[in-house]
Amino acid sequence: MPSEHAPFITPDALLSHWQAHRRLTRRVIQAFPDDKLFTFSVGGMRPFGALALEMITMAVPMVQGALSGDWNASTNREPRPKEELLRLWDESTERLNALWPQIPAPRFQESLTAFGQYPGVLHDLILYVIDNEIHHRGQGYVYLRALGIDPPPFYDRS
Amino acid sequence: MPSEHAPFITPDALLSHWQAHRRLTRRVIQAFPDDKLFTFSVGGMRPFGALALEMITMAVPMVQGALSGDWNASTNREPRPKEELLRLWDESTERLNALWPQIPAPRFQESLTAFGQYPGVLHDLILYVIDNEIHHRGQGYVYLRALGIDPPPFYDRS
Repeated sequence: MPSEHAPFITPDALLSHWQAHRRLTRRVIQAFPDDKLFTFSVGGMRPFGALALEMITMAVPMVQGALSGDWNASTNREPRPKEELLRLWDESTERLNALWPQIPAPRFQESLTAFGQYPGVLHDLILYVIDNEIHHRGQGYVYLRALGIDPPPFYDRS
Repeated sequence: MPSEHAPFITPDALLSHWQAHRRLTRRVIQAFPDDKLFTFSVGGMRPFGALALEMITMAVPMVQGALSGDWNASTNREPRPKEELLRLWDESTERLNALWPQIPAPRFQESLTAFGQYPGVLHDLILYVIDNEIHHRGQGYVYLRALGIDPPPFYDRS
C-alpha cells in the first residue's frame, strides 16, 4: 500500500486507545469526594464535574454526528451526584463501542462541520474530543492534589 | 483496502497534529514568568519548567529510538532560563520534522520496547508521549490561572 495511505493507527486501535483513556478519566471522577465534584476548583476554573459533563456532551455526540449527520445532542451540564455522573459515563462508553464500528473507514479522512460550527477533517475533530478529555483530566489531577488526594497513575489504563 | 488496514489517521497527518499541539505548548511555556517556571506549582506537583523538560526528553528520544534502536538519549532536566528552554523546544521541533518521515510506515504497527523498559505498539508509545504533553500542559493551565495569568486558548494551534 502506498505509504501516504498507510495508517499511523487504525480506527479499531484508536477506539481502544480512547476507551483506555476513558477508564482513567472514570477513575479520576471516582477519586473526587461527592461534595467537591461540582464545587471545588483552583484559579477560578470550572470544577471537575462540569469538565466531565463537557466530555460526555462531546464524545458520543461527535461520533453520532459523524455517523448520521444529526448534531442535535443533549448539552445538559447541570450538577448531579457522582453516581449519576458515572452512570452517564458508562452509558457513553457503551454507545461509543456500538457506534464507532459503524463509521465507514474512509470517513475519518473526510472534511465536515461538527455541530454546525467546527470545520475539520473527522480524524482531527475526534482527536480534539480525546485531547480535550486529557487536557481537562490533567486539570483534575491538580484539583485532587490540591485536595490532598492522590490521583490514579497516568500510565495505568487498565 | 480492507477496512482493518485503513487509517484512522496517517503518519503525515499525525505529525501535523502533534506539531500543532507543540505550538500551543510552546505558548504555555512563554506565558510563564521566567522566575515562576521552575519554582511555582500547585498541590506539591512539579513546576511547569520541569514538565516541559520531561516532554523534551521524551519526544525526540522516542522517535529517534523507534527509528534507530538507539535509546540512549540525554535526560538532563536541570532548571534553566526560559529562553534556553524555548531554544531546546525549537530544536526538538526541527528534529521531529527531520526524523519522522524516515520511520517506515509499517513500523507504527510493530511492537517494541521503548527505552529498554516500556513495551508497546509504536503508535501507542508515540501517542503516550503526545498525551503526556497534553496532560501536563493542562496542569500548566491551572498554574497560570493560579498566578492570575490567562493561558493561551486550547483550540488555537496556529
